[in-house]
Amino acid sequence: MGLIVQKFGGTSVANAERIHRAAARAVETKERGNQVVIVVSAMGDTTDDLLDLATAVCTYGEKVSNPPKRELDQLLATGEQVTIALMAMALHAQGHDAISFTGGQIGLITDGAFSKARIQSINHHRILNELDAGKIVIVAGFQGVTSDGHFTTLGRGGSNATLVALGAVLKADVCENYTDVDGIYTADPRIVPNARKIDQISYDEMLELSGLGASVLQTRAVEFAKKYNVKLEVRNSQNNNPGTLIVAETPNMEHIEVSGAALKKELVRVTIKAVPDQPGVAAKIFSTIAQANVVVDDIIQNVLDDNTANISFTVEHGDLADIKPIVEKLTKELGGKTQANYQSDLSKVSAVGVGMRTHTGVAERMFRALADAAVNIQNITTSEIKISCIISKEDGPKALRAVHDAFGLSDAK
Amino acid sequence: MGLIVQKFGGTSVANAERIHRAAARAVETKERGNQVVIVVSAMGDTTDDLLDLATAVCTYGEKVSNPPKRELDQLLATGEQVTIALMAMALHAQGHDAISFTGGQIGLITDGAFSKARIQSINHHRILNELDAGKIVIVAGFQGVTSDGHFTTLGRGGSNATLVALGAVLKADVCENYTDVDGIYTADPRIVPNARKIDQISYDEMLELSGLGASVLQTRAVEFAKKYNVKLEVRNSQNNNPGTLIVAETPNMEHIEVSGAALKKELVRVTIKAVPDQPGVAAKIFSTIAQANVVVDDIIQNVLDDNTANISFTVEHGDLADIKPIVEKLTKELGGKTQANYQSDLSKVSAVGVGMRTHTGVAERMFRALADAAVNIQNITTSEIKISCIISKEDGPKALRAVHDAFGLSDAK
Repeated sequence: MGLIVQKFGGTSVANAERIHRAAARAVETKERGNQVVIVVSAMGDTTDDLLDLATAVCTYGEKVSNPPKRELDQLLATGEQVTIALMAMALHAQGHDAISFTGGQIGLITDGAFSKARIQSINHHRILNELDAGKIVIVAGFQGVTSDGHFTTLGRGGSNATLVALGAVLKADVCENYTDVDGIYTADPRIVPNARKIDQISYDEMLELSGLGASVLQTRAVEFAKKYNVKLEVRNSQNNNPGTLIVAETPNMEHIEVSGAALKKELVRVTIKAVPDQPGVAAKIFSTIAQANVVVDDIIQNVLDDNTANISFTVEHGDLADIKPIVEKLTKELGGKTQANYQSDLSKVSAVGVGMRTHTGVAERMFRALADAAVNIQNITTSEIKISCIISKEDGPKALRAVHDAFGLSDAK
Repeated sequence: MGLIVQKFGGTSVANAERIHRAAARAVETKERGNQVVIVVSAMGDTTDDLLDLATAVCTYGEKVSNPPKRELDQLLATGEQVTIALMAMALHAQGHDAISFTGGQIGLITDGAFSKARIQSINHHRILNELDAGKIVIVAGFQGVTSDGHFTTLGRGGSNATLVALGAVLKADVCENYTDVDGIYTADPRIVPNARKIDQISYDEMLELSGLGASVLQTRAVEFAKKYNVKLEVRNSQNNNPGTLIVAETPNMEHIEVSGAALKKELVRVTIKAVPDQPGVAAKIFSTIAQANVVVDDIIQNVLDDNTANISFTVEHGDLADIKPIVEKLTKELGGKTQANYQSDLSKVSAVGVGMRTHTGVAERMFRALADAAVNIQNITTSEIKISCIISKEDGPKALRAVHDAFGLSDAK
């Protein structure tokens, strides 16, 4: 007998019929002899509707205020609470015993960072007791409570964090993440029509792909799964196709040079020129930017002959408005000839695979493929299992297809 | 400095604009130098919408099941949680510090009777701490938690129960119940156009009027207010008119023979004839009926010469379908000549007043008024402070007007 945690996202529980379909899947899993825990998100557009209500109430006369974050979490936590109760009723209507729990009811304790809280502990005994009593247990994703009882939410991808955390504390055999796609693909199928579903991928590869914009699983959930060695599976809630397993690396995986390719669109490269080449300057620049909660990537520093350096990095285009005033203030403080420029309309194409560690010639093959496709490479950054090239945005789709083909990713492995 | 608890029902918080209006009233009360606690219900039709969702999910194929009551409470408790968060945001938008609490967050512990739980205790220290910190405190009405953390709801009129319970534990100076009427009237103004708003009424009179169908305050809330001597005020959320104060009886109140008149419509009189006149038979009848959760009233027993008795009582018309099979089963068990009949289309007109205890001739004046109005009295029941007459339903409105006039209730006191 196994223990399986299944998570259904907002679209998979958007109405009564879909809730019943998700419930039926849990029942079927239980009838195969497993104990089953279900994690659910808020139904369909519920969270957006609640945010609209908050916006309406925060507009008073001419003034628009930001809602206190504690109260916003108090509000948003109701979304998942509705779904868990309905899921319990659906299972009951199908003739099965079930019980629903909010984050607070299973002692899912977080820190006090409202709207982006981190899980600290879960009282799994309560869940295990109900499982042992033969029930299907339903848990509200995305939410927890602080140790003194304030409701918190876990931020973007929070329900996946709940899924993996439950998998860890319950020592689940597998955590199944039900979405509207069949699994993780070798590249975005909307751009690369012959992209292939990956059967199995390592945590590290998945981490790189998540960071590169594969949106099915957030980096945080994968990090947590890796840390606690939780076997994760991404599956489609609308069919019974096998999904993608995300697991610890096996020696076998190293036979494959490249597991997937990704394209991150709409990047801006910020270059700060003639920065004084002194210890601590780079640290000052990036700590100032970090305070604005903007993620920077692809950092490159070139030291020039005149004791200055050029520092460049990329940010997502949507963050430009936040980061520009900070960079302008920094260049002014650094003084001298220091100045910044901003290059928009960039993309980043990447190849990811743990096999890179042991195979040579991967970078060369990637650069050759891009050259053959007449794609100009503007910057290169690498990690142990990833090669990324900054290119112009208009070259993005053909670059992704070229890299995908160069490593034969559409061939069955 | 006083401490005032204000309750706003569902229509008073139905949208962002009304939430702001309620918030503004709390602010104004605070700025007069009071500490303020707000109790809110779910917005407008929220509870009905949630019940519709539950019904949809409890319909599976051909089968319609009842939702587990625990899960129904888990679902319904979200309604008030949404309102408290929005109310806190509205107060914040108006520039005031506020904090919202669910029933669980203020340790409002109930028994485990889901859908009709009773309050056992409240941890008022948490509220007092926040009041002392200068905040307006918002509490979700209608809900609590069991000692082991299950969500419960308090049944019909539950938010008023929360209001009065908070008033008691916080030793509030007054509990203000904001509704869509100016207060308690000497009779239903829709039937008696010259009905007058009552300025002050005793708990006992209010209890009788609530039991007779005055729907603004439920009997339970008034009982609780009486027990803990909580001063209650019913006020209109749409204006600043003074409302009706419900308070402990004062000697002054006895100068008024009758404080109010009420009409309960759509009653059915159940008569069980030729019941063996033996000890325990009546007890058996009424305990059996009580198990069906039907409220019976106006019980009359006449012992006849042949050692049998006729027992009659009234129930609301809506309860007839529930009670009929029970009564039929009882008469069969009692055997002999025992049989039951059911007289529909009855109403009950009542006069209520603590002054009846010390004034004579009240009953006579009431019967005379009904006779003058050509209303036939079918049954009479009395308590220390109430006289009720069962009449035909079609005579109801004119009977109420006749009683109202007979005691001069429209005259200012």
